[in-house]
Amino acid sequence: MKIIKNPAKQTWESLCKRTTINEKSLQETVQTILNDVKNNKDKALTKYAQLLDNVSLSSFKVTQEEIKSAKNVVSEELQQAIQLAKSNIETFHNSQKELPKKVITTNGVTCWRKNVAIEKVGLYIPGGSAPLFSTILMLGVPAKIAGCKEIILCTPPNKKGAINPAILYTASLVGITQIFKVGGAQAIGAMAYGTESIPNVYKILGPGNQFVTKAKELVQQQGVAIDMPAGPSEVLVIADETSNPVFVAADLLSQAEHGADSQSVLVTTNEEVAKNVEVELKRQLEDLPRKELAKKAIENSFTVVFNSKEECIDFSNEYAPEHLIIASEKAFEYIDGIVNAGSVFLGNYSCESAGDYASGTNHTLPTNGYAKNYSGVSLDSFVKKITFQKVTKEGISTIGKSIEIMAAAEGLQAHKNAITVRLKELNS
Amino acid sequence: MKIIKNPAKQTWESLCKRTTINEKSLQETVQTILNDVKNNKDKALTKYAQLLDNVSLSSFKVTQEEIKSAKNVVSEELQQAIQLAKSNIETFHNSQKELPKKVITTNGVTCWRKNVAIEKVGLYIPGGSAPLFSTILMLGVPAKIAGCKEIILCTPPNKKGAINPAILYTASLVGITQIFKVGGAQAIGAMAYGTESIPNVYKILGPGNQFVTKAKELVQQQGVAIDMPAGPSEVLVIADETSNPVFVAADLLSQAEHGADSQSVLVTTNEEVAKNVEVELKRQLEDLPRKELAKKAIENSFTVVFNSKEECIDFSNEYAPEHLIIASEKAFEYIDGIVNAGSVFLGNYSCESAGDYASGTNHTLPTNGYAKNYSGVSLDSFVKKITFQKVTKEGISTIGKSIEIMAAAEGLQAHKNAITVRLKELNS
Repeated sequence: MKIIKNPAKQTWESLCKRTTINEKSLQETVQTILNDVKNNKDKALTKYAQLLDNVSLSSFKVTQEEIKSAKNVVSEELQQAIQLAKSNIETFHNSQKELPKKVITTNGVTCWRKNVAIEKVGLYIPGGSAPLFSTILMLGVPAKIAGCKEIILCTPPNKKGAINPAILYTASLVGITQIFKVGGAQAIGAMAYGTESIPNVYKILGPGNQFVTKAKELVQQQGVAIDMPAGPSEVLVIADETSNPVFVAADLLSQAEHGADSQSVLVTTNEEVAKNVEVELKRQLEDLPRKELAKKAIENSFTVVFNSKEECIDFSNEYAPEHLIIASEKAFEYIDGIVNAGSVFLGNYSCESAGDYASGTNHTLPTNGYAKNYSGVSLDSFVKKITFQKVTKEGISTIGKSIEIMAAAEGLQAHKNAITVRLKELNS
Repeated sequence: MKIIKNPAKQTWESLCKRTTINEKSLQETVQTILNDVKNNKDKALTKYAQLLDNVSLSSFKVTQEEIKSAKNVVSEELQQAIQLAKSNIETFHNSQKELPKKVITTNGVTCWRKNVAIEKVGLYIPGGSAPLFSTILMLGVPAKIAGCKEIILCTPPNKKGAINPAILYTASLVGITQIFKVGGAQAIGAMAYGTESIPNVYKILGPGNQFVTKAKELVQQQGVAIDMPAGPSEVLVIADETSNPVFVAADLLSQAEHGADSQSVLVTTNEEVAKNVEVELKRQLEDLPRKELAKKAIENSFTVVFNSKEECIDFSNEYAPEHLIIASEKAFEYIDGIVNAGSVFLGNYSCESAGDYASGTNHTLPTNGYAKNYSGVSLDSFVKKITFQKVTKEGISTIGKSIEIMAAAEGLQAHKNAITVRLKELNS
């Protein structure tokens, strides 16, 4: 990785810029697919399954038999690992539950919020080389805890029309039974508009390639909520003299293997560590099956060396990483300074892999600098927070006059009148 | 209002459909303005101020002198009313603060969330006939409580280049000092991209006309967060034999005066009440200064009469109203059934005006059926929820094996290796 020493502050913005792709033609392609699905429903899905996934399907819905036989194929060892991860994810997301807290703002005026599940949600799980069953845990577990009534899952089948057994096993374990063999932008369209086979939903969550991401963006404009905007995955590691270069290199590579457009950034006050990490990177890279991808990602990545810890934190905040690893025995000293990050891993043994799979935190996180203005997925992603208020006669007597004055000043006479008729009644 | 009796369930969806405008040309116009602001910054803003607001400005930023002199113009009575409202809104939004709650998911694995303010937010306040200073309270108060470092406000000036004093007074009271005389789509562009005068922000909140709404939608696609998608304001009132028809009519009209495209829906089990409300509507309408607007809105509105309370609730959930008034002495019996609503007003004295101004709840709420998948503005709107985790040696020993198995099954060898190097170190 390129090492940059003490970059001037005015260069930070451009250093932190992620690569973006020109998307004009992408938008047109995706819009065409979405329109087609909206108008022709299942027929369009069948067409794209043929065209894009090379598969001819008689039905999109995964059967109970398919789910059952998946369980027989997934090794006992993997089943137990998934169960352990599920349990930790449940524990952490259960802790995010909020009970209504009634607040008396003025005598006779009580206000509170209540979290109510979004009734219908759709989860998208990409297919391809890596079957991301872990993402089913990250989306399905909080959806279940929130109490979403209808949780559906779309994922592309392989050329034989089958879904990876680990995906089916995990979905079933979480309690998702409506699984559809549809991928790509067409899956997003199906969940947004509904087809004969696939019910429409109010919110769509989950990662995907650039077609899926663009489709989510476009249906969002039509009123379907989405988890967050997406971009390539990334990690920023802050290292110091207490870091372990072997661990740091492993963490940078675990990010890099996601794809050539992933980014792994190392920020450190210690040039020695930077050099040792570099040596380790080269060594560990050789053994990786996804070596070519990781190598390209590492070529697009960089190391920054600063004089002070404060500059490291400031730079990290400007970068706003999806994953921030504080690879230091003194990690807790950094916490207060962290302003922009998706998820933070503290200390030499808190590796990103832990959060990716099994520690309990969610791995669906804001990328591309969106950690400046977006949160990762949590229980909140699956609820609406509805406010309630009860105003008594005493309450309206106390605040009524002020409301009349404000409404009149805003030129909203009918708003004022809604108070006036009540005050009149009380004084009659 | 048209009275519909016991509509069949399959007609509900179309009954609940809001009117939408064809927006192809709107999008092009707004995109042109946004591009212009992005490229030409202040120069473009000056041009549009001339062209659209008929005003020639030497500077966009409101001066300290302007803010000071506004205070002298706003009546003592109005100042006190605004202060009372501010105090209640503060009390309720303060109650939404969340302290980090550390959760041990497995021995040696501790996870928690911390709410961290979005550093830079921009508030948009429309101009026009009604100076919506109340919205400054609704956005500014939670932004301040959250601890946003930079809070800027854009609002269009009048033809003399001045801002309504109540707006300046309220902004200053809340502690917002960066106020800019810019309105419309160009203001959204300025806050999204930044200009020589106006800093860019990470999130834009606030109501506006169709140009503003479209501009927010478009900059959202470029990574700027927004509060929520927007549409015309609306209320749904559920009334029964314990309702007061005078109050109900006043509440329906307070919604209707917002604009001809606003909608006021009455749902009741009691036809008598429906008829009495109708009489009251006609009577109260006569006295309203915004009579013409309200009349049109009422013409687009309707009453539904059902046989049962349950159908009233089900219909309301299908409509998913921004404001839901349960105009009944038995309002609390309805609470558990409410699934989709922005803000709920319980009982005959809890009128929407209370929540619009001074009870403490937020009035920036999801319209257009978006209450199915979006929450209103709250303290949450101004923070990111960052997750943290600390995994100890013990922790990684416990969950490490499972992570290795899952990572390998997902084909992510480098993820697995990040664990392996640590387990190796521990066993060495």
